[in-house]
Amino acid sequence: MVSSTPSNSVLASAARSISVRRRIADHVVNTPLLKSCAVLPDNTELYFKTENFQTTGSFKLRGATAKLTSLPLDRPLITASSGNHGIACSHAAQITGHKLTVVLPETVAPAKLAKIKDFGTEVILHGAESGLAETHAQSLAAGGDYVYVSPYNDAEVIAGQGSIGLELLEQLPHIDNVFIAMGGGGLISGIGSVLKSFLPGCRIIGVSASNSAALAASITAGRVVETEHLDTLADGIAGGVDEDAITLELASEVIDRVVHCNEQEIVAALRALAWTEKQIVEGAAGLALAGYLADQQEYAGQINVVLLCGANFDKSALMEAIAG
Amino acid sequence: MVSSTPSNSVLASAARSISVRRRIADHVVNTPLLKSCAVLPDNTELYFKTENFQTTGSFKLRGATAKLTSLPLDRPLITASSGNHGIACSHAAQITGHKLTVVLPETVAPAKLAKIKDFGTEVILHGAESGLAETHAQSLAAGGDYVYVSPYNDAEVIAGQGSIGLELLEQLPHIDNVFIAMGGGGLISGIGSVLKSFLPGCRIIGVSASNSAALAASITAGRVVETEHLDTLADGIAGGVDEDAITLELASEVIDRVVHCNEQEIVAALRALAWTEKQIVEGAAGLALAGYLADQQEYAGQINVVLLCGANFDKSALMEAIAG
Repeated sequence: MVSSTPSNSVLASAARSISVRRRIADHVVNTPLLKSCAVLPDNTELYFKTENFQTTGSFKLRGATAKLTSLPLDRPLITASSGNHGIACSHAAQITGHKLTVVLPETVAPAKLAKIKDFGTEVILHGAESGLAETHAQSLAAGGDYVYVSPYNDAEVIAGQGSIGLELLEQLPHIDNVFIAMGGGGLISGIGSVLKSFLPGCRIIGVSASNSAALAASITAGRVVETEHLDTLADGIAGGVDEDAITLELASEVIDRVVHCNEQEIVAALRALAWTEKQIVEGAAGLALAGYLADQQEYAGQINVVLLCGANFDKSALMEAIAG
Repeated sequence: MVSSTPSNSVLASAARSISVRRRIADHVVNTPLLKSCAVLPDNTELYFKTENFQTTGSFKLRGATAKLTSLPLDRPLITASSGNHGIACSHAAQITGHKLTVVLPETVAPAKLAKIKDFGTEVILHGAESGLAETHAQSLAAGGDYVYVSPYNDAEVIAGQGSIGLELLEQLPHIDNVFIAMGGGGLISGIGSVLKSFLPGCRIIGVSASNSAALAASITAGRVVETEHLDTLADGIAGGVDEDAITLELASEVIDRVVHCNEQEIVAALRALAWTEKQIVEGAAGLALAGYLADQQEYAGQINVVLLCGANFDKSALMEAIAG
């Protein structure tokens, strides 16, 4: 999967991250890199890049701010997400002054609906599940009334997430392995492009939830494929991949290894984060640590970074996961 | 309580913090300052100085490292603490190479005993409670065989904790209020001396646990007084103040206001930290936030910093506090 010299696509994404970072610097947090409190084998280092402490509670703010600051103000924007991307776009739109509409399924939880509306974002309720809401948002955009803001299938969004990689290069002189949860692929493509371009020996390890593994399956197939989606604690990464996703090419190139983790492994990682690292994070962040824990003996004697992507979660589900 | 020009004692402590900081810089973390995720009144800012992410899980490492690096290696050291100070001294002794003995009560929890021994620290078990262990350690030191390392009644230790104040000055251009839990007074004296010397308009708010308020009572009395000590979730700050404590003069001068908080207020603060700020901290750290929350309307429109002193806790007690 990995070529020794980055492709032009990867180099271009890395270069774009440098420009984007300057544009979004005033609006996003350069998040702390925290050293693990766990007992580790000799000469082993484990760090957490804490996007759980990012403004809006997730890395999605980087990509959303990157995209919105690249767009003129004269056309309204539309997207579909009741989660981190919807919150991030709503926050970014307050900064830029864009008119933003978010399409949500009719079944959206009242608390999530209220959170999006509190930003002053317009809301359209459509369909019984988030896939239908997304299709509706895309069709309204195709009709010409809106510009669609994809959560991952966009070069600016990917470059925005890549700004995390630039921060890592400043926070650590050397990194052997970076563990990143795989959703639509924006996060791993962005960070991976930066690290493969500027720290080529660094391995990018994609961590895929067994219950929702569309990107991992698509990389294996060499084309976007649909997969079954079961419930997962890592709901932030759940869902399919767009037919024309530009993340497929980038992710396929930058990912050195894919690790699959099940729900029990995610729970174990969430507990370790709560009680050893003293941080309460969302399931997708637990997933990234689960990928490290699954084969931790292989990473002994190395410098490892786990990307904690966010901390937006349903309290009762999280409480149940970390109890016991 | 507050004079407009700092006394020579306060200025000397601040100056000492500058020297100490250079000496301990390689061994302690410059801890992140995280912005609160809470919804706040307009123009109000709330930050957390996260010593819960300090090496060993508490600010005590600063003072312990400051003290040990000031002492020659030819005499063995002794202290008494099964908690943050004992762990911090044990860690610091590994760095400096000092021979260290920690006196613990015979009733110490096996997990705490094991943790101290794991550092290679010598342990003496003495007495039925921590006060007796402390007296025994002091008497062994008075006999000439050891140098006693106080958790707070020591200029080097206080200056070590003061390095937090120097970091705050670099992390924020202006601060109106800093909230600090009051135990023996080392932390608030150290940080307070730095801030009163270099940012004189900054108010230092001491937060005292109603169940163990010896320092607050001593400040009121103008001399060290004994008080009743009831169980408190903020066990890291529980206990009496040494008769000759040099923190009494410093704390009396630098503290602008003392706020008393009860156990219910500590629980509420621990819950806010867990579920709004996504951090699991020890009771004494919750106490500091409780002090802010008690009169938060008074701090509206201002820039506030809450000192999260550590994250070493009994898991079951903490779990119970944050559940529900």
